[in-house]
Amino acid sequence: MAASGSTVRAEALSEFCVQVFRKLDVPDEDARITADVLVQANLRGIDSHGVARLARYVNGLRDGVMLAQPEERVVTETPTTVTVDAGAGLGQPVSFRAMNMAIKKAKEFGSGFATVRNSNHYGIAGYYAMMALAQDMIGFSTTNAALLVVPTFGRDAMYGTNPIALAVPAGKERPFVMDMATSTVPRGKLEVYHRQEKALPLGWATDERGISTTDAGRVLDNFTKRAGGGLLPLGGAGEELSGYKGYGMGLMVEILSAVLPGAGFLTSVYPKDSAGKPLPANLGHFFGAWRLDAFRPSAGFKADMDRFIRELKNGNLADGATRIYIHGEKEFEEAERRARQGIPMEAKVEASLRQVAADLGVAYSL
Amino acid sequence: MAASGSTVRAEALSEFCVQVFRKLDVPDEDARITADVLVQANLRGIDSHGVARLARYVNGLRDGVMLAQPEERVVTETPTTVTVDAGAGLGQPVSFRAMNMAIKKAKEFGSGFATVRNSNHYGIAGYYAMMALAQDMIGFSTTNAALLVVPTFGRDAMYGTNPIALAVPAGKERPFVMDMATSTVPRGKLEVYHRQEKALPLGWATDERGISTTDAGRVLDNFTKRAGGGLLPLGGAGEELSGYKGYGMGLMVEILSAVLPGAGFLTSVYPKDSAGKPLPANLGHFFGAWRLDAFRPSAGFKADMDRFIRELKNGNLADGATRIYIHGEKEFEEAERRARQGIPMEAKVEASLRQVAADLGVAYSL
Repeated sequence: MAASGSTVRAEALSEFCVQVFRKLDVPDEDARITADVLVQANLRGIDSHGVARLARYVNGLRDGVMLAQPEERVVTETPTTVTVDAGAGLGQPVSFRAMNMAIKKAKEFGSGFATVRNSNHYGIAGYYAMMALAQDMIGFSTTNAALLVVPTFGRDAMYGTNPIALAVPAGKERPFVMDMATSTVPRGKLEVYHRQEKALPLGWATDERGISTTDAGRVLDNFTKRAGGGLLPLGGAGEELSGYKGYGMGLMVEILSAVLPGAGFLTSVYPKDSAGKPLPANLGHFFGAWRLDAFRPSAGFKADMDRFIRELKNGNLADGATRIYIHGEKEFEEAERRARQGIPMEAKVEASLRQVAADLGVAYSL
Repeated sequence: MAASGSTVRAEALSEFCVQVFRKLDVPDEDARITADVLVQANLRGIDSHGVARLARYVNGLRDGVMLAQPEERVVTETPTTVTVDAGAGLGQPVSFRAMNMAIKKAKEFGSGFATVRNSNHYGIAGYYAMMALAQDMIGFSTTNAALLVVPTFGRDAMYGTNPIALAVPAGKERPFVMDMATSTVPRGKLEVYHRQEKALPLGWATDERGISTTDAGRVLDNFTKRAGGGLLPLGGAGEELSGYKGYGMGLMVEILSAVLPGAGFLTSVYPKDSAGKPLPANLGHFFGAWRLDAFRPSAGFKADMDRFIRELKNGNLADGATRIYIHGEKEFEEAERRARQGIPMEAKVEASLRQVAADLGVAYSL
């Protein structure tokens, strides 16, 4: 077994996750998809959405809040659109299939879209958007999420970090892959600042009165108590730095992902029964694909994307800056590094995987 | 004639614009569309994009940078997508027709998209997105624009304020209409602060070194001299408040609107010839429409949008706040007010309209 703080090969980590899901009666295909979405997050350096979350999926499956073998069904379909009811299953397998349906429709008609309701946390939004790249398509995905973000001028968290992902093929350059929460920062960043006893920048979060705060512990404590306050939309509190724009992007995601397919939205996600026991989350997702050559020949588009990317990267730098980045660039570089060197495992995460293994009687030999 | 600072009826203002465009050989239909897009901006309170810009369109048409009777043609088409070459005509008429093509495709296939290249400034993005509302569709539009915004860690303005508009029907409530630049603020807001000799909030703009500045005059002066610096993406400079997210949204718009149809992008928009004379702008636009009932029955969707809007509006307020807004709400209220009371005309704007009228020999009797 690897020592704490060591690195793990992506393939071994993925296989471990597959074994865990299979032990919980998840069908093989679904287990493999879910494991891949998790491990790809780790490879890309987005450890908050990687195997650190495995225990939560395990708990969801064991508590019956996520179903291992859900009844997944198409509820509405047109030549270019489809709405799928996930039957309270894992978010990843239904999302993988929904994005493939969008891609198939785009192949035939130029563009294709899929929405999903009655689903669960689907991992990194970018995974699904990136599925379009190999098909010479632009991919798009959004999802709603647990209540963490306050609307502009609001006191309470009323929607989630609601990410937007867009993946665009290039030619010789790496694809453009944007995968961003519409809040200024995710909750995990507050936890890091809290551990390090650092003051939050104003614009990240509000206290229980809805006022910008530097006190990470207070915000996290308020989350636990549901006492008010929360993460701020991109642009911060009020109107001075245009926080209503980040709030608007968050609502756009909530509408496309949740209102459109008929999923839970705003405070109705992650419901509980009268005894306080969690019920299925009823999250919603949105997926889209546009064929490049439905707009103009792919080769010309990709050559222009190369020029676009190079022009930005070669732009003059601000004083003190060292590099202009393209979205996805850092993650591609990290993925190449981790594919070679392995995925670094935090001791706490490794301990949680060992616990999962022990609880389920699955071998842990990473 | 109306005195300076008076109000003008929308219908009269629109008819004046029509006469101006017709005098410049713009076909009647195109003149009416362009006039309507301008006056709707004024009605909705977005005066920066209303008739205050009429003189710029007039100059563009007179200088031959915008063509009154362009050769507009479809260059690529699939069942759900179309790319239109605007032939260097006015941005509004081609955009109106392109959005209608997207809507027609959505009627037949569930979703529809149109991109436009070789175009000019198209006015308010929200106008086109809102065209979908009466059809029980979600409307979407983006455009690229003149160089004003610096990439994260960059020194020079390399792309525009690149707006995103999304319009979503509701039932009894007003539609959700988001229409936002992806920069923290538009250039016009710096001009207001400059006139009032107020310090800019940090996060709006950078100086010629690419450093956040409070000095509006310096930024505006640098624009004129092309000396470096510019508006900041939503989220401000660097990474602390996640400015790379606003930068990512700006690039998303640049890709969909300009790289996708093969328009000019980044520093290649608004080109000049070797003598410094402006050439056609070659801007690009993106339009989309999704039929509500392609995802689920419209009635259920619209009832849920009502619940969504009411839940947000009834949310608990932050200390000191008076109201939680829904996107588009302020503009709908303003449009109702101005439809009743008339459109207030700044003396400077009125003077520019009188000048246009005098130059072209069109009656000005508002």
